[in-house]
Amino acid sequence: MQITRYHRCTALTIGREIIGGYDKDKISVAVIASHSALQILHGAKKEGLRTVLVTTRERLALYREFSHLIDKVIVVDKWRNICNKDAATSLRRLNSILIPHGSFVEYVGPDCAERIELPIFGLRSLVRVEASQWEKIGLLRRAGIPTPRTYSIGEEIDRIVIVKLPGAKGGKGYFIAKDGEEIAKRLSILVEQGLLKDAADAIIQEYVIGVPAYYHYFYSPLLDRVELMGADIRYETNVDGLRRLPPSLIGSADPSFVVVGNIPLVMRESLLPRILDYGRKFVKQTRRDLPPGIIGPFSLESIVTPSLEIKVFEFSGRIVAGTNLYINGSPYSWLYWDEPMSTGRRIAREIKIALEKDKLSKIVT
Amino acid sequence: MQITRYHRCTALTIGREIIGGYDKDKISVAVIASHSALQILHGAKKEGLRTVLVTTRERLALYREFSHLIDKVIVVDKWRNICNKDAATSLRRLNSILIPHGSFVEYVGPDCAERIELPIFGLRSLVRVEASQWEKIGLLRRAGIPTPRTYSIGEEIDRIVIVKLPGAKGGKGYFIAKDGEEIAKRLSILVEQGLLKDAADAIIQEYVIGVPAYYHYFYSPLLDRVELMGADIRYETNVDGLRRLPPSLIGSADPSFVVVGNIPLVMRESLLPRILDYGRKFVKQTRRDLPPGIIGPFSLESIVTPSLEIKVFEFSGRIVAGTNLYINGSPYSWLYWDEPMSTGRRIAREIKIALEKDKLSKIVT
Amino acid sequence: MQITRYHRCTALTIGREIIGGYDKDKISVAVIASHSALQILHGAKKEGLRTVLVTTRERLALYREFSHLIDKVIVVDKWRNICNKDAATSLRRLNSILIPHGSFVEYVGPDCAERIELPIFGLRSLVRVEASQWEKIGLLRRAGIPTPRTYSIGEEIDRIVIVKLPGAKGGKGYFIAKDGEEIAKRLSILVEQGLLKDAADAIIQEYVIGVPAYYHYFYSPLLDRVELMGADIRYETNVDGLRRLPPSLIGSADPSFVVVGNIPLVMRESLLPRILDYGRKFVKQTRRDLPPGIIGPFSLESIVTPSLEIKVFEFSGRIVAGTNLYINGSPYSWLYWDEPMSTGRRIAREIKIALEKDKLSKIVT
Repeated sequence: MQITRYHRCTALTIGREIIGGYDKDKISVAVIASHSALQILHGAKKEGLRTVLVTTRERLALYREFSHLIDKVIVVDKWRNICNKDAATSLRRLNSILIPHGSFVEYVGPDCAERIELPIFGLRSLVRVEASQWEKIGLLRRAGIPTPRTYSIGEEIDRIVIVKLPGAKGGKGYFIAKDGEEIAKRLSILVEQGLLKDAADAIIQEYVIGVPAYYHYFYSPLLDRVELMGADIRYETNVDGLRRLPPSLIGSADPSFVVVGNIPLVMRESLLPRILDYGRKFVKQTRRDLPPGIIGPFSLESIVTPSLEIKVFEFSGRIVAGTNLYINGSPYSWLYWDEPMSTGRRIAREIKIALEKDKLSKIVT
Repeated sequence: MQITRYHRCTALTIGREIIGGYDKDKISVAVIASHSALQILHGAKKEGLRTVLVTTRERLALYREFSHLIDKVIVVDKWRNICNKDAATSLRRLNSILIPHGSFVEYVGPDCAERIELPIFGLRSLVRVEASQWEKIGLLRRAGIPTPRTYSIGEEIDRIVIVKLPGAKGGKGYFIAKDGEEIAKRLSILVEQGLLKDAADAIIQEYVIGVPAYYHYFYSPLLDRVELMGADIRYETNVDGLRRLPPSLIGSADPSFVVVGNIPLVMRESLLPRILDYGRKFVKQTRRDLPPGIIGPFSLESIVTPSLEIKVFEFSGRIVAGTNLYINGSPYSWLYWDEPMSTGRRIAREIKIALEKDKLSKIVT
Repeated sequence: MQITRYHRCTALTIGREIIGGYDKDKISVAVIASHSALQILHGAKKEGLRTVLVTTRERLALYREFSHLIDKVIVVDKWRNICNKDAATSLRRLNSILIPHGSFVEYVGPDCAERIELPIFGLRSLVRVEASQWEKIGLLRRAGIPTPRTYSIGEEIDRIVIVKLPGAKGGKGYFIAKDGEEIAKRLSILVEQGLLKDAADAIIQEYVIGVPAYYHYFYSPLLDRVELMGADIRYETNVDGLRRLPPSLIGSADPSFVVVGNIPLVMRESLLPRILDYGRKFVKQTRRDLPPGIIGPFSLESIVTPSLEIKVFEFSGRIVAGTNLYINGSPYSWLYWDEPMSTGRRIAREIKIALEKDKLSKIVT
């Protein structure tokens, strides 16, 4: 198993050393200007932490409106520059803990995310796993979490499948199919177009008939517990619009799955024991495969079937955009905290607890 | 009318006598571990009441995470054991008012729900009505609330219908059809399979073309008013997922209607006068048919048509799971209370008001 | 351009003169009993303002439940009577600022809305623009906001289109089509039926394939900024219900688009810079075309395509019903204010700021 090499690699926990040199009275939270940055900044401020925003110039116009949430802005010409020595040095001088979110790896690339010389709130070694659809599904399966059936290219396809490209690009390029030959053809076109390195990098997954549901978790290494932070449904273009057309007009139009937003959801309470259990299983497996294991927010992404099976088809090892729904707390976080606790604020709260207990190194890699 | 026998039966208001013997300073709220238990426990704590959770062993892992909301846990081997003398005695010793929710009757059965020797926050005699789809629709009609057309087996079916099985099992087994013969055939198979006692117990309802909307109400016997607590859309597998597939791939797949969660909704304000009116009509009719009439939360379940008719196809005589969306208050409850008022908390508030006014017997049966 | 005549017409800013005679210590907020009245009343109370509700008799039963939010009720026999001298005089005596909402113009008619001798919180001259689908789309285009392609009657139609009737009647009468001749035929029937004056008043718009998303804004003339107040999805009968039927049963049933409610939504954060930019462009264009330009809440109504283009197909120049979701604040308003800030309350807050700065005339027309 290729994964085992990661935890031998001390570089993947480099943040634990760096944070030792930080001034504990001046810890700041750093985030790049996208995805759930506003939530993270807002949450940090609620907990009394300093904040740093790393942004490109064209996004300044938005974030300037929220200058009350931002102590320091670092402007980069392009996102990858955050990996340059200068940027990292500036951030270390600001005693910054970098909060990676769903756009972070997409913007800076996995190499930068792995190497960047900053404490990262989260599990750095997971980046490499997430770059591969196959390693992702493998981790879920080793954890004992039910997943949809997968197919190799060329294998006989006996049901509807969804074909997913590597990386976390908001569903772009995913397609539904039923026929093995058609899939092979479409993938080879993508390879020709340079949109895919190798057809085998795509994953062919059983399209489970049911409803999608996304669960937000937070694993606290300090309280040693998995908290349910919320649930959502992704709002995807054009699939969620096509269905508003009369079937005769949809014709043969292919649905696409580009996420543009999120809709709130609460789950049937009798499903929560299992949803929580899967979250715990995920935490345990990351500890085994990739010590020290996951830190902070993560998400399991599922289809719930009519027989109430929960099939997890993907995960995200960090804060997901669905949490933006719950900036003033979710139905679940109110149960735990009885104060407005977003996932962004929960991150800041964990940092605060770590500061109090002098355990900062436990919550970064 | 069969219903009239209920209100002669004093056993159906037995809780009014039992609560007379309770220690008013130590009232607790008891709930079984499912459906909206977390909301109810959280609400009770917000109002300063003691709480008791009745649970089976396998659900402990979830509810233990919320031990700050639970004063006492009673573990039962199976749900029906809550009806044993011992369990009821323990709960009476804890001065418990049992809060029934949508899973209560399903888990313990209607007999237990009717006989259990505990004060129940709600209208005990409604249990029997809710066991029959026909009695349910009859109550709505007597109340003067518009309902969809219904058909007897064998009657000519001239439009799309939905066929519903008795009991409140989250939509399980419901199916859509257009053809009388097909319906008769499918029902007789269900009878053969033992999933249905008598084909005539199923209700064949016009499938009203429009959008589903569920309204949450609270009737306060003490303030003598019906409050709008919220609205939601049920999230059902696989019907809400099927529609994401291209029509050519859906093929002849039958939709199913198993509820897995709820999505928030606000209604057009110009519909609220009618929505409130129907709620009031429902309260009045339960008073006539089943004195003392409904107490606390209930729900009307409707389709809204393009001509803005509201057709109520079902009701729930207790707290519905859609209220779990609003643990920190709903758009409507904020208007009434200007503090975070979930339906769970509203129940506890009514108990508190009853304690202050020394009118506990008014809010239980 | 016909629009330019408006800003020469002082009658369209008559409220600026009237408010000069108001007693600043007794300003009240007046609203008619529909749409978002409860939100507006609630918001005004949170800011300590007095409130007036103008209502017809049959709606009293609803609003009486919220008498704690209403200082004064004015009952009219029919909505148009609000334009009578007596009603306006009563409201001026109460130092009322009228808050127009999405049902206001629909109920009282554009003439009354333009002429009424009361200070209006908003841009009075926009009423006339909104009466015409063509002028609406023209304003958006001059602002530099991307819009769907439009077609004239008789022009060759090469894709799916939606045909919209003039006025803001909650989507009533809209239809989808693909064929020019069919459109001409349907429109001429509507003209015959007297439901449409002239076929050319209808707009034939490209039906953009994507997902609908509605953005709520607030332009503060006093802080000179555009705030993002929230986003929603409209819940429309029967289009959002039809899709739950198996394609074979939908048959040739035409979808209809009558709005019955709203569902919460947060947008992908990387879309926010553009969403905010379009809001600002809209504000600027109203200043150019219709000085002093928009005041307070407005909405842009869009389809987001799979390539993440945002096509704005309509706007609303006042508070939209989707804001009713956020009576306790939206994910966005929490970021700005960190207190529960609905659009209704935001209106009252602007009035409060104007009172403090002695700039009431800046926020009315």
